[in-house]
Amino acid sequence: MHRVTVRLFATGGAGNAVDKALVLAQIPKMHGENVARLQRWISLPSIATENRNYPNGAHHLVDLLLQAGFDAAVVLPTAGKPGVFATLDVGAATTLGVYFRYDVVPFNPAEWSVPPLEGRLVPRDGLGTVCMGRGTFDQQGPQNSFLSALMAFRTAGIKLPVNLVLIGEGEEEIGSPHLGELIDEPRVRARLKGCSGVVLPEAGQSADGSVEIMLGAKGILELELVSSSARWGRGPKMEVHSSRAAQLDNPAWHLIQALNALIDIDGHTPAIKGFGDQAKALSPVERQMVVRYASKAPESATKQLLGVEHWVHDLNWHESLARLFSEPTLNLQGLVAGYTGPGSKTVVPHKAIAKIDIRLVPDMTAALALAQLKTHLSERGFGDIEVNMSGGYDPTQTDMGSELIRSMQAAYWTLGTPTTMLPRNPGSWPGCLFSNPPLQLPVGTFGLGYGSGAHGPDEYYLIDSIDSALHGIDGAVASFVEFLYALT
Amino acid sequence: MHRVTVRLFATGGAGNAVDKALVLAQIPKMHGENVARLQRWISLPSIATENRNYPNGAHHLVDLLLQAGFDAAVVLPTAGKPGVFATLDVGAATTLGVYFRYDVVPFNPAEWSVPPLEGRLVPRDGLGTVCMGRGTFDQQGPQNSFLSALMAFRTAGIKLPVNLVLIGEGEEEIGSPHLGELIDEPRVRARLKGCSGVVLPEAGQSADGSVEIMLGAKGILELELVSSSARWGRGPKMEVHSSRAAQLDNPAWHLIQALNALIDIDGHTPAIKGFGDQAKALSPVERQMVVRYASKAPESATKQLLGVEHWVHDLNWHESLARLFSEPTLNLQGLVAGYTGPGSKTVVPHKAIAKIDIRLVPDMTAALALAQLKTHLSERGFGDIEVNMSGGYDPTQTDMGSELIRSMQAAYWTLGTPTTMLPRNPGSWPGCLFSNPPLQLPVGTFGLGYGSGAHGPDEYYLIDSIDSALHGIDGAVASFVEFLYALT
Repeated sequence: MHRVTVRLFATGGAGNAVDKALVLAQIPKMHGENVARLQRWISLPSIATENRNYPNGAHHLVDLLLQAGFDAAVVLPTAGKPGVFATLDVGAATTLGVYFRYDVVPFNPAEWSVPPLEGRLVPRDGLGTVCMGRGTFDQQGPQNSFLSALMAFRTAGIKLPVNLVLIGEGEEEIGSPHLGELIDEPRVRARLKGCSGVVLPEAGQSADGSVEIMLGAKGILELELVSSSARWGRGPKMEVHSSRAAQLDNPAWHLIQALNALIDIDGHTPAIKGFGDQAKALSPVERQMVVRYASKAPESATKQLLGVEHWVHDLNWHESLARLFSEPTLNLQGLVAGYTGPGSKTVVPHKAIAKIDIRLVPDMTAALALAQLKTHLSERGFGDIEVNMSGGYDPTQTDMGSELIRSMQAAYWTLGTPTTMLPRNPGSWPGCLFSNPPLQLPVGTFGLGYGSGAHGPDEYYLIDSIDSALHGIDGAVASFVEFLYALT
Repeated sequence: MHRVTVRLFATGGAGNAVDKALVLAQIPKMHGENVARLQRWISLPSIATENRNYPNGAHHLVDLLLQAGFDAAVVLPTAGKPGVFATLDVGAATTLGVYFRYDVVPFNPAEWSVPPLEGRLVPRDGLGTVCMGRGTFDQQGPQNSFLSALMAFRTAGIKLPVNLVLIGEGEEEIGSPHLGELIDEPRVRARLKGCSGVVLPEAGQSADGSVEIMLGAKGILELELVSSSARWGRGPKMEVHSSRAAQLDNPAWHLIQALNALIDIDGHTPAIKGFGDQAKALSPVERQMVVRYASKAPESATKQLLGVEHWVHDLNWHESLARLFSEPTLNLQGLVAGYTGPGSKTVVPHKAIAKIDIRLVPDMTAALALAQLKTHLSERGFGDIEVNMSGGYDPTQTDMGSELIRSMQAAYWTLGTPTTMLPRNPGSWPGCLFSNPPLQLPVGTFGLGYGSGAHGPDEYYLIDSIDSALHGIDGAVASFVEFLYALT
């Protein structure tokens, strides 16, 4: 494995310091074009579930990468949506892997206070000016800031301190079903092997300005459970008048009973046989991380942000956070069956669907969790329920002593940003495809900046901050410049 | 109470016979205009849940009634959709009440083989030509044929043998929430009091040509069960990223558990405490009706029509029919929660909705069943689940010895139509509003003709029959002429 040599608490020699100053000086001058580039990206949302803006989204990313100075950037087809592969070789000793996704989640304009695709600049109480739109925070905003950093190098005429290998996918929000294909492509695999680690750019600041360094991420399974009369062999094979309910089984009731069999009486704990048996408890060091995080993170502000009065089981803040970072979950994200319009329609449905996501922690695997779910359903009399997996992958774990993580700490130290190290990201990103064999690379997320509303309405990314602890877009761009130097 | 004197097996004297022959002779000549009038009606669907074509649908019905010779027809406002009230007074000794609904259920054109609002005439294997479209069978087709019968009298210049009082509503398909208002209107109430009974025109023939005389109908409750974080006080008050599932309750899992508490382990029997305790078992005579019906009705054709392999609990045909005519039901017609689009969206929902209908048999009442459901939910820990009733009413029961029922039998006998008497309609119509105090009128459905697909795709009404046992539109119109004479 290739590893970088990190000089902790130093970001290069005197020559580097001058170069860096020249690069950083470009950032305020490029503010307007950096924002405009983000707005253009927001106006072109690729949404896998809606087959929207494909392959346009991949082509747009290629254009952005070439503008940012990549030597080569190409669209790579997969059995699903196309990916993007790009390299930037400056002859440096160190090569950094970068992971982008160009897709976003669906949105419902009716729930937004502004049109979701304009990237409109709006004032936000206590924050300053934010760019509001689908994908501004998750993940186009931070990715655009990373590209803006590369453009600052280019504009300043300064050579990057590291080589870059970038993989972009267009299906992250549906569970990255074809990212493995991209990574297994021989040219891609060969270049990734030479990387010292893989980073996902993020807007990583909490409301107090601190940043969490996540030592990995939960894995995920995204599933549809389908109960249908056709497969069950009971109930009507088309929607029929509900007077027939007296004579007929109903696949929607069948789904209700199947779902009920997956969850404990407490309405929260997964009841799937064997599920989570492979979950490792937090280590003493990880437990200390959670204690420290709980003492700093603001419980009441988080509750307000989520619209929550009580944590599950009425746990206290620290206990609820210990769950957030350590527990596998079984989430019911949606239900759809029969008549779903306003009022009533007296029918017996022929089909009912539940949408579920399952989050995994080490040493659980996506394959085993899926098998456990199917076996459980079958043993409880629901073997006819189809389990369709739209995406998923294993958890990611990265050693806190790895040089990638130590470079991140060094960059944040230089930037004066307080950091909190956490056992893992409670969300999911497919870092495991880089951290699992055969690549076994350290992976992590990095970046200053602030935003909110991932997957919900009124998603935003902070552009001009009035809070001295929070960085707007310029600070986010500068953090990536700092990080690139910290790697050398 | 006013009652008609029925001369069983006779439909009036010699004068009547000549008059009737003159009227019946008009029907074939009016075939084209009768079909065209139905097609126009199909093109104007009033759908209460979509607030579509109101008050236009009521005005259109008024126009049709005036064309058919009613002396007066007016739109009556209610707190919901408007109703229609019309009278036709010929100075006869007998007055018949007629109940129309001008609304239909929603439709999804993607599921249809023809556009659902054209009323297109298409060939149907083994039947002849049918008019296909939403509402053709349920209930515009039969209602249009009843009006066509009145127009045949008018065209022949023959006086109707009875007076008519007609009530039309536009909310039958959402449970008739304001029909009571219409009936309680003083002018309406006064005219209904003078009626010998109330009839709903139908296309009543089974595939073998026989007709079922239903001694009432099941009652119904149409409900939405809403689980929301806001009302529960747990879970997120807006959709949030599903990584938070580790810390948060989920109102969709809560709904699953609430629904599971409503149904027995068999997935079919209502488990609501006290539900159905008031249900009267079939009487010996009613049991005989079911036995006779089971011996004649074609099980395999019915299974094919419904796309069914097994009746619930693997009952035999007779046992399943006994349930159809005697058992109250708890049907799950639809589910909608969180993300319902294609693929996946990793969110914890803030709300989940189940759509339910409950069918009631004598002596159950809608009010008691609703109270039992609410109490049961509350006792099982789901008191926070909102129970929103969009409509509903009690069961209807009519004495098999009543003169209305005997007139129907007489008319069918004259028409040469085999009849089967049945304990009740397993579907629901708000006959109880006429049969309950204070009116206490006999109520029933009547009419020859054939159709299928009520509430589903490709609904149709037979226009030109190639099956000698089944009547097309002309036969249906003639049956209403015969019925009006049978009442005198």
